[in-house]
Amino acid sequence: MKKIVIALGGNALQDVDSSATAEAQLKIIEKTTKYLVDIIEEGYNIIITHGNGPQVGRIVIQNEFADKITPSMPFDVCGAMSQGMIGYHLQQALGYELRVREIEKSVATIITQVVVDKEDQAFKNATKPIGPFYTKEEVETLRIEKGYEIVEDSGRGYRRVVASPEPKRIVEIETVKTLIDNNNIVITVGGGGIPVIEEEGKLKGVEAVIDKDLASAKLAEDIDADILLILTAVEKVFINFGKPDQKGLDQVKVDEMKKYVEEGHFAPGSMLPKVLAGIKFVESKPERKTIITSLDKAEEALKDLSGTIIK
Amino acid sequence: MKKIVIALGGNALQDVDSSATAEAQLKIIEKTTKYLVDIIEEGYNIIITHGNGPQVGRIVIQNEFADKITPSMPFDVCGAMSQGMIGYHLQQALGYELRVREIEKSVATIITQVVVDKEDQAFKNATKPIGPFYTKEEVETLRIEKGYEIVEDSGRGYRRVVASPEPKRIVEIETVKTLIDNNNIVITVGGGGIPVIEEEGKLKGVEAVIDKDLASAKLAEDIDADILLILTAVEKVFINFGKPDQKGLDQVKVDEMKKYVEEGHFAPGSMLPKVLAGIKFVESKPERKTIITSLDKAEEALKDLSGTIIK
Repeated sequence: MKKIVIALGGNALQDVDSSATAEAQLKIIEKTTKYLVDIIEEGYNIIITHGNGPQVGRIVIQNEFADKITPSMPFDVCGAMSQGMIGYHLQQALGYELRVREIEKSVATIITQVVVDKEDQAFKNATKPIGPFYTKEEVETLRIEKGYEIVEDSGRGYRRVVASPEPKRIVEIETVKTLIDNNNIVITVGGGGIPVIEEEGKLKGVEAVIDKDLASAKLAEDIDADILLILTAVEKVFINFGKPDQKGLDQVKVDEMKKYVEEGHFAPGSMLPKVLAGIKFVESKPERKTIITSLDKAEEALKDLSGTIIK
Repeated sequence: MKKIVIALGGNALQDVDSSATAEAQLKIIEKTTKYLVDIIEEGYNIIITHGNGPQVGRIVIQNEFADKITPSMPFDVCGAMSQGMIGYHLQQALGYELRVREIEKSVATIITQVVVDKEDQAFKNATKPIGPFYTKEEVETLRIEKGYEIVEDSGRGYRRVVASPEPKRIVEIETVKTLIDNNNIVITVGGGGIPVIEEEGKLKGVEAVIDKDLASAKLAEDIDADILLILTAVEKVFINFGKPDQKGLDQVKVDEMKKYVEEGHFAPGSMLPKVLAGIKFVESKPERKTIITSLDKAEEALKDLSGTIIK
């Protein structure tokens, strides 16, 4: 059976327009899982990864608010909490959809650590905004008391930034492989995985965010997946996006995609990391392909009828 | 290889006297894992369960504090978050200790739901205190706005109470079995599991706490474990505790233990649930035994040299 790593984007987990209550989140996830089980019914063995930006941001806010009463957990621990939270809802929704369609499969969330290199250049240049917006007045205190690196975020206020290092090794990979081989839908590397560095044989959580699409590409390589399916808000990747000659990409060879990257067609922090992760996976072994598309076009894209396909 | 379910008590995860920072918690967990790996070296296949009272209490506090900014998660979701948090630290600490001793095993935290009966009598009589203490002034608002059931807690203030229903089914049991059979140390039913009820085929989180020792007994039955090891703060279970004729129990037959229960030797909410869980497991099949002891006496107790052993 073909193995497919499905990287869920933020919109598969939470509706930007609706509230962030547990009920609202669960409702979106229930909708998402119908599409996922459609893919299972097409005969694929699916492995699920997901982002956690808004969710972990809220956990950070909750931690900071109660800081006088109970100590704030560091960012790695907040990441572990978000994996538990999102995984739990995915388990509930997937479990239900599987039962309805009489598919006998287990669903397992694995709390997953991902090793990064402590010498990664990214640690010298924090770029990934996390948590709430702060006022100018709060910034100095936070820099001194908590050691936060804080930058102005496009006129909307000030935000803490952390590094986004590359994923080097998925600590729980053997567990994940065992479960994939034994009839489980595995949910792993949530939020890109909990970033840890190795120090004298010990793993140590760090304040960083691993790009979830890069972590998904690493996972897909490690488990020898056939397809990496990166889900996002749009059906296709565009070149010349927003210009009169914008063009959605259908089937693209790796070299062509690399040329588009060099020409600067893709926005950093948005489509660029997806495209780069997609290229990385396709280059890792012949026959592998990456699909970038929206949730509702995924099934068509698997039949080469929609989406952007990198080969 | 003999299978042993080890139920970690609160003191194995957090020192009551020290702070509740992530660093302090991790330090206690690192100490705990040395004892756990000792048991592995004695030739046992270990499965770990744990409580989450203080940890989930803090998550509830953080949620309530930030309630005006971001919606509070319901108690089941907080439970999932605590499983992620505690499991993550156990993975780090166990992983290190295994590497040091050159034992090749994976460590996996499974986010675990446990089904309870929605008709369980416990739902009519909430007894389990959770979260922070409230002042008398706050109580009425919380009752009306959040529907909390709140009771006075032994003169220390007011506390929310939830039901403590019996565990009926561990949803992720197949996943747990697969991992146990494939060289994984599994961390499961954290905090007694996330309590869910079944409604029209759907699992639905409920505001309740499943006793972690009862959930551990259920797990031990389901995976056909040989031993249920319930760790607590004391070396032995006592009868006539605190009286001049108090006596620590060594090896006790089930019938004798039941007699002590009937005579009211064990405190509800403290030793009683452990003893009841222990009896339940031993009665489920001949040859099974339960050990109740402290972490530092566990290895001796496995050799019948310490602890209270129910056969």
